[in-house]
Parts: sequence; structure tokens; C-alpha cells
Amino acid sequence: MMTFEIKSRDAMGRIGILNINGKKIETPTIMPVVHPNPKKQVVDIDLINKLADVIITNSYIIYKTKHLREIAIDKGVHKLVGFDKVIVTDSGSFQLGVYGDVDVEPLEIVEFQEMIGVDVGTILDIPTPPDVDKEIAEKDLEETLRRAKLSIELKKDRGFKLLLNGTIQGSTYLDLRRKSAKEMAKLNFDIYPIGAVVPLMEEYRYRDVVEIIINSKMYLPTNKPVHLFGCGHPMFFALAVALGCDLFDSAAYAIYAKDDRYLTERGTLHLDEIKDLKSFPCSCPVCSSYTPKELASLNKKDREKLLAEHNLYVTFEEINRIKEAIREGSLWELVEERCRSHPKLLEAYRVLKNYIDYIEKFDPVTKKSAFFYSGVESMFRPEVLRHKKRLKRIKYEKVYITTISSSVEKPYHENLNVIETDIDILIKHPVFGFVPYYIDTMYPLSQNEIPELYEFEKEINKKFYDEFIVWLKRKIGEDNILDIMTYNYYTSYFQSTKKGFNSDNLRIRKMLQYQYGYDIIDDDLINKIKVVRSKNTGRLRQVLDENNNILFTVRSNDNLLIPSERGAKLLWEKILYPRYRVVVNKEAEEFIREGRNVFAKFVVNCDEELRPYEEVLVVNEDDELLGYGTTILNGIELKEFNYGLAVKVRGGIKKVLK
Amino acid sequence: MMTFEIKSRDAMGRIGILNINGKKIETPTIMPVVHPNPKKQVVDIDLINKLADVIITNSYIIYKTKHLREIAIDKGVHKLVGFDKVIVTDSGSFQLGVYGDVDVEPLEIVEFQEMIGVDVGTILDIPTPPDVDKEIAEKDLEETLRRAKLSIELKKDRGFKLLLNGTIQGSTYLDLRRKSAKEMAKLNFDIYPIGAVVPLMEEYRYRDVVEIIINSKMYLPTNKPVHLFGCGHPMFFALAVALGCDLFDSAAYAIYAKDDRYLTERGTLHLDEIKDLKSFPCSCPVCSSYTPKELASLNKKDREKLLAEHNLYVTFEEINRIKEAIREGSLWELVEERCRSHPKLLEAYRVLKNYIDYIEKFDPVTKKSAFFYSGVESMFRPEVLRHKKRLKRIKYEKVYITTISSSVEKPYHENLNVIETDIDILIKHPVFGFVPYYIDTMYPLSQNEIPELYEFEKEINKKFYDEFIVWLKRKIGEDNILDIMTYNYYTSYFQSTKKGFNSDNLRIRKMLQYQYGYDIIDDDLINKIKVVRSKNTGRLRQVLDENNNILFTVRSNDNLLIPSERGAKLLWEKILYPRYRVVVNKEAEEFIREGRNVFAKFVVNCDEELRPYEEVLVVNEDDELLGYGTTILNGIELKEFNYGLAVKVRGGIKKVLK
Ligand SMILES: [Mg+2]
Ligand SMILES: [Mg+2]
Ligand SMILES: [Zn+2]
Ligand SMILES: [Zn+2]
Repeated sequence: MMTFEIKSRDAMGRIGILNINGKKIETPTIMPVVHPNPKKQVVDIDLINKLADVIITNSYIIYKTKHLREIAIDKGVHKLVGFDKVIVTDSGSFQLGVYGDVDVEPLEIVEFQEMIGVDVGTILDIPTPPDVDKEIAEKDLEETLRRAKLSIELKKDRGFKLLLNGTIQGSTYLDLRRKSAKEMAKLNFDIYPIGAVVPLMEEYRYRDVVEIIINSKMYLPTNKPVHLFGCGHPMFFALAVALGCDLFDSAAYAIYAKDDRYLTERGTLHLDEIKDLKSFPCSCPVCSSYTPKELASLNKKDREKLLAEHNLYVTFEEINRIKEAIREGSLWELVEERCRSHPKLLEAYRVLKNYIDYIEKFDPVTKKSAFFYSGVESMFRPEVLRHKKRLKRIKYEKVYITTISSSVEKPYHENLNVIETDIDILIKHPVFGFVPYYIDTMYPLSQNEIPELYEFEKEINKKFYDEFIVWLKRKIGEDNILDIMTYNYYTSYFQSTKKGFNSDNLRIRKMLQYQYGYDIIDDDLINKIKVVRSKNTGRLRQVLDENNNILFTVRSNDNLLIPSERGAKLLWEKILYPRYRVVVNKEAEEFIREGRNVFAKFVVNCDEELRPYEEVLVVNEDDELLGYGTTILNGIELKEFNYGLAVKVRGGIKKVLK
Repeated sequence: MMTFEIKSRDAMGRIGILNINGKKIETPTIMPVVHPNPKKQVVDIDLINKLADVIITNSYIIYKTKHLREIAIDKGVHKLVGFDKVIVTDSGSFQLGVYGDVDVEPLEIVEFQEMIGVDVGTILDIPTPPDVDKEIAEKDLEETLRRAKLSIELKKDRGFKLLLNGTIQGSTYLDLRRKSAKEMAKLNFDIYPIGAVVPLMEEYRYRDVVEIIINSKMYLPTNKPVHLFGCGHPMFFALAVALGCDLFDSAAYAIYAKDDRYLTERGTLHLDEIKDLKSFPCSCPVCSSYTPKELASLNKKDREKLLAEHNLYVTFEEINRIKEAIREGSLWELVEERCRSHPKLLEAYRVLKNYIDYIEKFDPVTKKSAFFYSGVESMFRPEVLRHKKRLKRIKYEKVYITTISSSVEKPYHENLNVIETDIDILIKHPVFGFVPYYIDTMYPLSQNEIPELYEFEKEINKKFYDEFIVWLKRKIGEDNILDIMTYNYYTSYFQSTKKGFNSDNLRIRKMLQYQYGYDIIDDDLINKIKVVRSKNTGRLRQVLDENNNILFTVRSNDNLLIPSERGAKLLWEKILYPRYRVVVNKEAEEFIREGRNVFAKFVVNCDEELRPYEEVLVVNEDDELLGYGTTILNGIELKEFNYGLAVKVRGGIKKVLK
């Protein structure tokens, strides 16, 4: 039995709880490769036990080695290895890749893995190397798919307890990777490893790895963990997690140690290069007990063991750093730092631009931490793309296009001395394209840090400006657009078109348009609502109806509008089904009305365009409003997950007795 | 007594040995701030002793606190604090900054520091805050300079043993910082702290700090350590070291711990933010013994101590990382990674572009590790600037300008199937401007990694191309320049202009022009030299004269031409005095002729344009050739240093008896 649920997220990365046969693993994580023969294991299993909740070992080696096989059959793989938590095994497909042949039948090894009590076994897939002839890759893939099907049938027929890894293959052919993912998805494996990337990693072909990951992820079920098989170098983890990889394994910690190589989150150092340093560039228990000179002078065996320990510490350290970044909403920032440690990593990161429409669907609409610009690459991040798209949600009638000095602090409207108007003012922005004056407090328009830009960087959005203006002209007519130079200078232009104009109310109206894509506060309501400002900051904090009931709270960190029950009802009236809705079945109805959270298994439909962390309405199949809350899952995941939290409910709505 | 010498270097950063009263410190390093009252010290002095070779404490607090004062006068400051290694003290100028006044006379506190046995004391300078009226900054600076002069006189008159810190002030006025540096330089202090940057650091005004550092460094003697006073955050160390800062102090490790703040090399986390993580993103002894939850649940005092210990570990860890980067020649790479951790740091890094002519003088001409492109910022690095300048060293007669596909591997000439010609071929390069075909193996033209570039990045050098072509036209006439499209296509154009053309010999000739700026192999010699290729790689390895004597070895990692004795004599004949020369006094002559290294104290003159790690000639004042070797110091430092290694000599040249 396996369950998987998402606890926190950023980019396509997620902190998940993976429950395997009652044993919990927090993902993303790394499984150290442990040799099934304790005598051949370089790092003590005690340290592995301390650091890891899951390990991987090789069932084929156990199968082929008489004394290991006997112990494993007799006492189980956990006793053999000395590890009580989750044990994953490979199937011999690694040996198949290296030697071209293995001495076991595909179903036999699956059966063997079950027999020795493995938690997660692996089918005997064919690991096709990069750049082979396409026919070979296709033939291999057919065989892998055939074995996959047989293995799943075997497991079902015999009622196997073990979970199964269904590995994605297809060499460097992205269409084959997509096909592999699509077909394997149908077979309902428990975990999806992405296979045969080791040769690419070894040649620094990170760009190929990134394209393989994305093309696989796009067709894999979102509710299953993805394991980037054979990737054990911490420098690649942040990028892989940001693309939705949940699991890694590391033989690297031991293999590198054998060659006196010292892992860091930025790359690899050879002990020879650092042996003259006074101290190690690390504070792990190994590095704070030995000087490089001392370590280098130890005998081969001791040195290898200590280096492997260090390698393991920094490997887990990077996993922890990534988890922290996910919780803070700064995973892209971490990725953009890590990608500077090797130009091939930077090249791989730059490729994401081509897939950003897909990636954006998984990126939360709001984050705890600000958007940090780390270089021109940041221009193409999902937060920027989403804003540019959502700019079109605002209902424009008359627009001024303007620029302001880059020295004006955010939010702009608090630092510009202008006569306010009910005309939409679009302030040109070198990164975000345009910042509409009336939504300038909303994430990420105020929650960002951007350095002074180079001149050529300021030109990058020129095409976007032009295209947007063309769209706007078509929408509201050329006569309703005035392109003016700088804001302060032309204040005389800013005259309201309507009487009784209230800039606070207009601000709320525009913010809601931007957040939901609908005109929640229409021409009628705009004169009835009232705003409440914070006594401390003077900033907008609440929106009230004409009877002074709260409709929305303006959340201080991101200025999203958080509905009250009345606000939710208003949203429900104004937003057409199924937009901004999560639909649950009858069974859940009463729970939601009582204010309990929506779990994924109750979701029957939803707005497919929902992103994580959006404010949504929970309705039944008749579109009756049951509650309102915040999505944990996006529109794709809401349909695919059947376990774990889907919407964190803020409030339930009691049934009105007729 | 203090000596300071450079052991290894990169950017303007240096690994130095600072010897203070017989106690050695390897720089760059950090001095933890230790409270003079052991009861107020959060971290045990044992851990400080383990990690640090130098600490800083406050002489004014000792002076003002009766029982501390008595112990210090009686037993000395080392016993008071419990630290035998180097102790630096501040003078009360921090208190002056905070309270506007101190209760001690400027000379009294200098005298007191001597009395209690401080190793390095500090004058009572005036720490002017940022952005004050210029008149105030000027007045404060005058007073600091007056006190500096009096303090130095006092030390001299009374024969004080303590070394003195001469702090640079001037607020945020760069002209005042320059003036301060110039005047303080005249007074011959032992160490130069750059003062009053703490308020700037606290406001993330890293750009101002960078400009202050550079404007001070430009006028400070290169042979004295520079201490960035009050900068204790590891995220800024790499950049500060790259600008020539040697010493840091950290009160931050303790101050941040008091507020539950957790330092990392990438920024600061609050314990609240990370207390829900399963494990810390660090492997130091603290973080591998406690979970965040455990640490957060400790009482305030224990928590503060452990956080301070962690903060200290990561602070030293970053120093070690920086030293490793200096040794590898990858300090710019580390800086370019660190600058992505906050946009204000990136902005600060981008400012270096304005000072790159100065910075380039200190950047070694060759590095162990390759040039890594980390983003568009890398276009403006000193290695690129130097190449663009040195392109003009080649003696052009007839030139083809061409482009090649970005998929051609380096070195280009091994991967292009072309008829070679004795015409100079300049291959357009998006980063380096042009790669001359015949020097395409030389650092950094083959030793670089560049990702696939964005289209706009490829346009950045357009202005450089145009300016260079204008220069070239003036030099050799428009008729001698042929701008052709792509190399392979136009091979028919490549016809040699001279008979008996030997492309290997031409390659050596051009490489020497590029390396030395002189035509070492002239029209006569070109037909006499021979090249030897490596049996393994087939690459050029040696240059022989007509009698098969070695003139130069082509060094495999960077393809610089390393002269033999004959080669050195040839260089000496062809290169005009004082170019590529280090001139030593009579006293050193015999030693150099015997092949011993050149120490800085013997240097009387040199080519001011020399860079670190260049191959140079060592001559006496009559320009007689004494030896040849590699510079450790650049042309400015060769004149300023009077201690330590100046030129690592490869060979001495015996006197010819007449
Ligand atoms: Mg952030
Ligand atoms: Mg490098
Ligand atoms: Zn370590
Ligand atoms: Zn730590």
C-alpha cells in the first residue's frame, strides 16, 4: 500500500509524504545505494540509518550471490542489509545495461524481490543508452513495455505486497520518452523512475536530462512520485526537484570516494586539489575533525570511508536546503544560484523557457518570499509569464501607458504624487512588462527585488509591449489608448471619466479582476463597497459591503483578496461555472459545509486552470456553494490525486433551508 | 613586527601569510569578535581557539571596566581573553559612532592597547555614517587623519610593539574615501581597515560598499592587508575578497544568534522559518546533532550558544571555500554564484564593470581552472577585457574576418577542415570578441565553458567588433581586410601570401606576439625554428632552434610559451627594456644567476604592466639577463612589496666571462 500527498510546494517541486507499507518518507529525498553484502559497504549502516529513511540496493546481486540469497530468503532483505525502514531494489537492469545480458527472467526477478520482502521493487526494464539508432531505442522500449505489463499482471494475479517501479526509457528520443511515460502511466505503477540518464550526467549533458525529465513528467500521473534514477550529484538536485523529481539515489557518495573525489553542492573537487588547504570547505563531522592533509595521509580504506561519509552529509544537506527553499517559495532562486556552478547547468536551465507554459501550471500563485532577479534568465520565470497572461484579465476601457523612474519605490502608488483617475494606467516595467497602477501591491508586483539593469536587458520586453498594445487596441480601440512619457509630468492628463470616482474602490475592483478574471465588483457594486485601512500602515486591509459586513480581507504579504463567506457568495454569483471551482461528490458535502478540508478523493471535477495556492469555491455537482478555501493542488492534480489534502477550507457554508 | 606575503591569488583576492610578532595567520580570514568579559562571551573560547587564528576584542570596554582593566594590565589581554594567538582590538570608535562620544583621549587608548599587550591596536578614528553632509564627512576625516598622524608618531617615539590599524573613513563620498586612503597610506600603517560600512551592510547597500572598497584599495599600498571592518556576513565574503579584502571580523555570529537568526553562505534564515524542517540545511556539529525542532525548543541561552556556534562554523566554511577557489583560479566563478543570492549583491557585482581596467591589473594571466560563463555578467570579466586588449598585440598584415558554427569544438583549428594560410584569421566570438585562428589554444580561448547564448547576448559585442575593425583598418588598410561569411564555405579564399609557409611555425610566432606583444620569431627566425608534437595528443609541445635546442615549451593546460634559457635570451634580445622585465639590485644578482627565486626586497624596478603569473625576465640595473621565471606579484606590487616572493625563478643565467 502506498499513499502520496503534497504538503508544500514551489516551482514543480513538492514536499510530499510518501507512505509505503506504513513507513513514512518525506520527499524530496535521496536513497543511498547500499551494497547487499555488508562487507562491501563502505559507510557504516548506522550512519545510513541516521541520515536516510529509504535506501536502494540491488536484488540481482542478492539473487546471484548464494550466501546473500539464502539470508535474504530466510530473514528478509531488511535483516540482510540492517535497515528497517523502506528498501527499494533495482532489478539487474543496471547490469543489463553494462553487460548486455543478465541471468534471470524478467518475472523471476520481480517474484524474487517480493519473496525477500522488498518494499519497492523494479521491473527488469531495458536501459537504452543515449544516441543509439532510433529503431534500437524503439525496440528496447517495446520490450520494456511488454515486461512492464507482464510484471504488473503478475503482481496483481499473485497479490504481491511489494510496490513496483515502472521505469521510463526511450534513450535521447523525446518522443519515445513521451510515449514511454504515456504507456507506463496506463499500467498504474507506484513510482516512476526516469531511467538511463547516468551516461548523460557523466558527460555533463544536463540539457538532455532536463528535456527528458520534462517530456516524461508531462505524461506521467501527477500523483505518483518520480525518481531520477542514478542521479546522485547534489549540484543537480535543485533543478531536478524544480522539475518535479521526488526521489534520487546515490551510489555517487561511495563511487566518488573511491577515486578520492569530494562532493560539494557546487561540483566535485579532487582531494589532490584541496589537500594543501588549511581546512575543508565544509563543516560536517568528518571535515571538522580532520584537516585535508590529515585525511589525505590516511590509508586508502579509511580515507575512502571518511570521504564517502562527507559525500553523504553534503548530499543530504542539499536535500534539506531544497526543502527549506520549497517552504519559503524560493526554489527558483536556489535553482538560479546552482545553475551558475557550471555553464552546462546554466544551459540546461535556459531550456526551461521552451516549456514554461507547462511549468507555470504547477507554480504557486503566491509565495512567502519575494521574487529575486538573479540575471536575465529570471525574465522567463513562470511568475513573470503568469503576470503577463493575467494582465489580460483586467477589464480595460481607457488606458494610459506610461513609464516611471526606476528609483520610485514599490508599491508605486504610495510614492507617486499624482491625481488619481479612473482610467487604467499601465506602467512599463522592464521585467513584468506592465504594472497596472491599481494592482501594484499584488504579488509579485511589489514583492520583488530587481537590480539596476543593463540597457540591453531593458529592451528584452519590447516585443511584449508591442504585442500587448496590439491586443489592447483590438480590445478597446486606438482612441482609448494614450501613450504618454512619464507619469509625473503628465498629471494633467489624468482626469476621471466618471463622476463620484473612488480610487480605493476602483483599486479593489481591478485587484479582483486580476485575481479571478471576472468583474466581481461591477458598476452597481462599486459605489456600495467600503474599504478599511490599517491603522498602523494606512494600507487597504478590508472590503466591506454596504452594511459593513466584510467581503474580503487584503492579505498583507501578497495583497491577494481573501473572501469571507459573503465574499465567497459574491464570487460564486459572478464567476461562471466551473471557473474557480472545485467540485466534490455528495459524500463530502456535509463535511465541507462544516468547514472541514477537501480531500482529493472527494473531488469529482474542477477548473482545470487552477494553480496551487489559489482562493477557490468548493461546490457540489449542482454548483451549490459548500465552502471556500485555498488549493493545495492545481487543476490537473485535483483530478488525478485520490489521496491527501486538495483544498484547505477557510469556511463552510450552511445549507439554507427552503 | 609584521610581514605579509602573497602565496596564491585570483581576481584581486589573495591567499597571504600574515606574520604578526611571530604568529602566522593565513589570509583571507575572519576574526571572531570576542567579548573581553568571558562571562559575556556566548561561544566557548575553546571553539574559537579551534577555528580562529586571530580574534578581535574591544580595548575601550576593557579600559572602562575596572576588573577587566586590572586583569589586562596585570596579566595581559591574551590571558584575560584566554586566547594565545593574535589579538586585534578596536579602540572605542564603534562606541563613538553609537554614542557620539567616548571617555578616553585618542592617544590614551593607543597607549592602553600597547600596555595590555594587544598585537594589533586601532586608532580612535571617527566613524562617519553614510549620507551625512559632505562638510561633516570632511571635518570628521580631517580629525581622523590628525589622530592617525599623532598615533603613528606616538608609536614611533615610544617604540611601541603593537601594530596599528589605520582606518579609512569618508562616509559615502568616494572622493573622501580616496583621499583618506591616500593620506593614510603615507603614514605607513600596518593594516588598513575600511570603516563605517556596517550601516550600509545592514541596509543591503552592497553596491555602495563595493564602490567604497575599490576606491580605497586603489590608493592603499598593495603590500598591506585590508580589513573590511564590521563585515561578518559570509554571503559578502567572496565578493569582498575578490576586491582585495584580506581580513573580516564577525560579531554577526553572536548578534544574529541572539535574534534566533541562522547564517548561511547564501543569506540569513530565521529559526522560525526552519523549525518545521526535518533537518537543518547544514552538516556542522551543531546541525548534525540537533533537529530544528529540538534546537527551537531549547531555552534561550542554550539555543543562542548553539546558533552562534553554527554561525561560526558556516562563516569559516565560506572562508575555506574562498581559499579553495583562489587556489583553483575560480574565484570569479564563486563570486558570480554568490551574487545570485540577493539582487542587491548582483547589482553590486555589476558595478565592477566600471572599475574593470583597474581590477584586471591584479587578475592572473592564467588559471588552473577554465573560464566558466555564469550569465551575461561574465562578458565583462577581466579575462575577457584582457584578451580584447591583447588582440592588438598581434602583428597583422592581412586579415580574414569570419564566423564559425557554435557547435565547432575547441580548439577550433583541430576541428575545422580547412586549407591553412599565412593570413590572420579572426573568428568572431560572442564573448571574447575575436579568436585568432593561430592562438586558439591559448588561455582562455580554449579553456572556457559557455552555454548556448540568447540572441541578444550574441549582439553584445557588436560595438567591440566595429571598433576593432576601425582600428584594424587604420593599422593595415581596408584592402587588407576581408570580411567573409563562414569559414568552411570560403576555403578557396585562403591562399598563402608567402612561399614556404609553415603553419606550425606561424602559430608559434603569433602565440608569442600575443603573449609578449613583440615579434619574437621574426621573418628571419620563422624558417629556422622547428616544432615538436606530443606523441600522445599530437599537439604542439616544444619549439626548437635550428640546432634542435629547446627555445620554448608549450604548457599543456594553458598553451603559454614557457622559455628555456635560450628562449629567455631570445626574449631578452627582442623585447625592449623595461618590458617583461623585473629589475633586481646588485645584492641579488648572484642568487638569481644560481636559479634562486626573486624576493620582493631586491626588486628595484619592473615593467609596470606586468600581471601575476606572467613569464618574465629577471635583469640587473644594466639590463643584463640574470634569470627568468613567473611573476607572483603584478607590476604595481613588485614595486610596493618589500617582503616575500616576487618572481618564482625557473632558471638562472651564468655570467659570461669576457
Ligand atoms: Mg524568493
Ligand atoms: Mg573556473
Ligand atoms: Zn564535509
Ligand atoms: Zn550548522
